[in-house]
Amino acid sequence: MSIPCDESTTAVTGPRLVAEPHKDGVDAAVDAARRVVTALLRAGDGTGADMNGIAARLDAVADGLTEKASSMETRLAEMWRGEGITRHDPVTGPENALAPPLHLHGKEDGSVEGVVTLGLPYQGPPGHVHGGISALLLDHTLGVANHWGGLSGMTAELTLRYLRPTPLFEPLTVTGRQISVDGSRIRTVGEIRAGGHVCVTAAGLFIDKQLPRPS
Amino acid sequence: MSIPCDESTTAVTGPRLVAEPHKDGVDAAVDAARRVVTALLRAGDGTGADMNGIAARLDAVADGLTEKASSMETRLAEMWRGEGITRHDPVTGPENALAPPLHLHGKEDGSVEGVVTLGLPYQGPPGHVHGGISALLLDHTLGVANHWGGLSGMTAELTLRYLRPTPLFEPLTVTGRQISVDGSRIRTVGEIRAGGHVCVTAAGLFIDKQLPRPS
Repeated sequence: MSIPCDESTTAVTGPRLVAEPHKDGVDAAVDAARRVVTALLRAGDGTGADMNGIAARLDAVADGLTEKASSMETRLAEMWRGEGITRHDPVTGPENALAPPLHLHGKEDGSVEGVVTLGLPYQGPPGHVHGGISALLLDHTLGVANHWGGLSGMTAELTLRYLRPTPLFEPLTVTGRQISVDGSRIRTVGEIRAGGHVCVTAAGLFIDKQLPRPS
Repeated sequence: MSIPCDESTTAVTGPRLVAEPHKDGVDAAVDAARRVVTALLRAGDGTGADMNGIAARLDAVADGLTEKASSMETRLAEMWRGEGITRHDPVTGPENALAPPLHLHGKEDGSVEGVVTLGLPYQGPPGHVHGGISALLLDHTLGVANHWGGLSGMTAELTLRYLRPTPLFEPLTVTGRQISVDGSRIRTVGEIRAGGHVCVTAAGLFIDKQLPRPS
């Protein structure tokens, strides 16, 4: 295994740019759902666990929640209420079990940074992060970097370069920085590092427009 | 590797290039876990559901599975046994609740294609697919297109162009095709279409090498 890297002991400072997770309520249930997703992958079919029984228990949880849910229109409007950061995206969202989640902070030099360790659900090549998961983390981080930089937009183009495999089970540092604004065209870069080495770089072109929030 | 053709799950014909989901065992539990992930996002904190009770029920499922699991080394070796397609990736894997899952089929013209409808967990802009999720689907699809084309590799570079927002809740057609092999350099393209319109295109450079499978 690799030598421990500095990221594991260096806390990222600066204002938090993504939603703060709560210790109870839906965030706690989502945290537990993340544990289930990982545990199912970890177990597979060879453990003798009563998977049909587990399926029934999980279906009962889903059924109970779905019965209580409001209409999709109401829920979408609720998700997007206000102008602030959202809680549901698949990268940072405390309400989304797909999100690792990545906690991004704004730094005084204009960049954003977060540290995350990814487990089995994010695997592509053996023992390493799926290239598309790196793309997902970076696309989102570049978007947050635009927010921190003062002008946000929608992704028009994103180029990823994979310099070396990105390891699972080790702290990854994900960074982003807006580098230029030319009219409505925003250029932003970012990277994922592990153990001091750059694994993936991203360069994005964003356009200063937003889809309307549902109401 | 056996490649059963399952036309019941999608209108796309041609040999299935990704793992076949089973109706019971871990795949059924993972399907139920997907329902939980979606239901938690759908419910949020406003329904009066007993979220701490749900967290406890989910934690109990995770704890039970984790107790029965073999060591990580054993599990990784098991995941990667043989030369065939895997069951755990975050795009097509029937054992991974992060995967929608996307079912890809090989076509006679050399391309691969799958149809998938994405819900709330995959949201980026309001009512639309997260740009990084489109990147994840396309990176994986290009990899499967390389497999179908006869020479696979690791992603070295991936460029995505976002032509229009990709809708949630509507069938998306995801395609990929290997276009050239020059020594170890493989070039592959793909796109995501909705309602006959191209939403996202991808162009990838892959290098003909693989990380060793754990044993």
